[in-house]
Amino acid sequence: MKFIPVVRPYLTTRSILPENQETPISFTEGELISDLLFYRRNHFAYPNFISNFYSIPISGAVGLPKSFTLQEILTLPAKTIKVVLECAGNKRAFFDPKVFGEQWEKGAISQGYWKGVPLRSLFQHTGLRESATEVVFEGYDFGKRKDSNSIHNFVRSLPIGKALHPDTIIAYEYNGKPIPFKHGYPFRLIVPEWYAMASVKWIKQLIVIKNKFTGPFQSVDYVYYPDKEKDDGKFPVTTMNVNSTIQKPLDMEILDTGSYEVKGIAWTGKGMIAKVEISMDGGENWNTCDFRANSSDKYGWVSWNYHWSIHQKGEYTIMVRATDSENRMQPETPLWNRKGYGYNAMDRIKVKVE
Amino acid sequence: MKFIPVVRPYLTTRSILPENQETPISFTEGELISDLLFYRRNHFAYPNFISNFYSIPISGAVGLPKSFTLQEILTLPAKTIKVVLECAGNKRAFFDPKVFGEQWEKGAISQGYWKGVPLRSLFQHTGLRESATEVVFEGYDFGKRKDSNSIHNFVRSLPIGKALHPDTIIAYEYNGKPIPFKHGYPFRLIVPEWYAMASVKWIKQLIVIKNKFTGPFQSVDYVYYPDKEKDDGKFPVTTMNVNSTIQKPLDMEILDTGSYEVKGIAWTGKGMIAKVEISMDGGENWNTCDFRANSSDKYGWVSWNYHWSIHQKGEYTIMVRATDSENRMQPETPLWNRKGYGYNAMDRIKVKVE
Repeated sequence: MKFIPVVRPYLTTRSILPENQETPISFTEGELISDLLFYRRNHFAYPNFISNFYSIPISGAVGLPKSFTLQEILTLPAKTIKVVLECAGNKRAFFDPKVFGEQWEKGAISQGYWKGVPLRSLFQHTGLRESATEVVFEGYDFGKRKDSNSIHNFVRSLPIGKALHPDTIIAYEYNGKPIPFKHGYPFRLIVPEWYAMASVKWIKQLIVIKNKFTGPFQSVDYVYYPDKEKDDGKFPVTTMNVNSTIQKPLDMEILDTGSYEVKGIAWTGKGMIAKVEISMDGGENWNTCDFRANSSDKYGWVSWNYHWSIHQKGEYTIMVRATDSENRMQPETPLWNRKGYGYNAMDRIKVKVE
Repeated sequence: MKFIPVVRPYLTTRSILPENQETPISFTEGELISDLLFYRRNHFAYPNFISNFYSIPISGAVGLPKSFTLQEILTLPAKTIKVVLECAGNKRAFFDPKVFGEQWEKGAISQGYWKGVPLRSLFQHTGLRESATEVVFEGYDFGKRKDSNSIHNFVRSLPIGKALHPDTIIAYEYNGKPIPFKHGYPFRLIVPEWYAMASVKWIKQLIVIKNKFTGPFQSVDYVYYPDKEKDDGKFPVTTMNVNSTIQKPLDMEILDTGSYEVKGIAWTGKGMIAKVEISMDGGENWNTCDFRANSSDKYGWVSWNYHWSIHQKGEYTIMVRATDSENRMQPETPLWNRKGYGYNAMDRIKVKVE
């Protein structure tokens, strides 16, 4: 009898109730993250709803309120876009001083092809009143928050401009298959360029409003509080910061002398990645990494690599910094904030060559 | 259609080739770790051998060399013992200054029931020469080490006294089922009280020797080097240090005021756990934790708990320290050593009560 054991990476468990598990970002193969290894981030237990007669009601500041059935949405013209979704708390574990909350390392990020209907085509059916300023998206997931005793659904809003952007879609497929239940089946909002709290799962209803939405997932959570105690200087979490992650080698890995392909990803919420630089000496000297940029894929990450020939034994601090087409570059130190959002300091690992 | 999603923890991936994945120790239920969540630690790729005609040859300083077939071993009187296996590198990631190598956090440890034949019953068939000082155990796993160009099998030795201990067994079942291939099928040496590098998987042969074995996994790896550069003061890794791990709550978790069950495990390689203490104020005041000690299960860990009623909001540093029946207590700072073995500082987490 011969054994051919299968070796594969798994999600990294951060909590079970609600389920929070991160993508093993150093061990994923290829450009697309399979649904099995897509990170899972929940505020509550999974919702329990009947989807046979599923529909999405749109009400509020519209010309004609309307409920769209599943079948109606599936017959509207769709588009497929590669989008990276990154949890606003990705890399929270690296803040110094440390921040309370889920200790996400580098894997609260995934990407793949989302297929769906631009939200704007739904509004072509309902019309929009001139007074409309925001669209509120309610998910089926709900539960108790720590700061109140009442039950809240997960609800977020988008400014009307972002909601009407042709690439803001109501998605129903991921990588060519129906969206897995855990990732929002049957319909998930996909908001390219924004941190993923905006991409509401299990869409229950949409309400167009004339004022500013102030639900707790908008005005309490997902807000940058740069001060440890006070709320001074707070501002909302929206677009992703320019960022990068080294996938190979691993932090604290021991290597032989020889030739290596240093590999990683870089992404941004504004424009596209314009430059990725790497330093093998802790930031003194910088070299350019290779990657293929494709403007039609600007919502995805780029995979970069750098050929490293190393013959001198010793310890090396490898740093990577990405710059986007809006000229935003990763900072050396991140913006510390009390809830630990938007960490995007230059990525940094150490290796030892023996 | 109703969805009832299954939520379960996974192994945490540290490397794929060789496969190194740790047990999600905060998310395991019950006293026994299922084979699915048993941590995997390999030096090389999985071996590839034909087990139909499997046998274990014993040679060297014995009266009569003999090869034991699988069937023969299965008919000898067996015993079943609960044993914790802990990788010598468990908790390596917490050394300060950091140490190169696999960055194990707290999950390179598992326990369950191992069934097998005491090694001494095999020697009753072969006899032992008086000159015998060590038994060498060779595993089927092999590969290239970073420090040489030749191929090595994984080989370790035990002093003759430990090899003849009635609880040192050649195991063939884990939790009532054949040992899974990844954990050493068909036969794995189980050495209670020692770090798990001693519990050689996929046993290929045993050789009784008259001198000191000096293979690289004995004299280069699995040696404590307390000095960063020099080898002065080195000594071999053998028995497990007294140790403990907090499983609940999680580090940096945000809690409500209220009542909690603080939970964890404690274990030792000498005697049994005699005391587990917990501090909720960073080590100023200590309270006793509850646990059930059972001398027939002394090779397993104990599960302890502590009832915490907390009504005062704020940040808390929780520390736990175990003491064993040999009066060894976990130190406040671990013995730093260059290869990062045997970390056993008091366990420490921080939580915030809101």
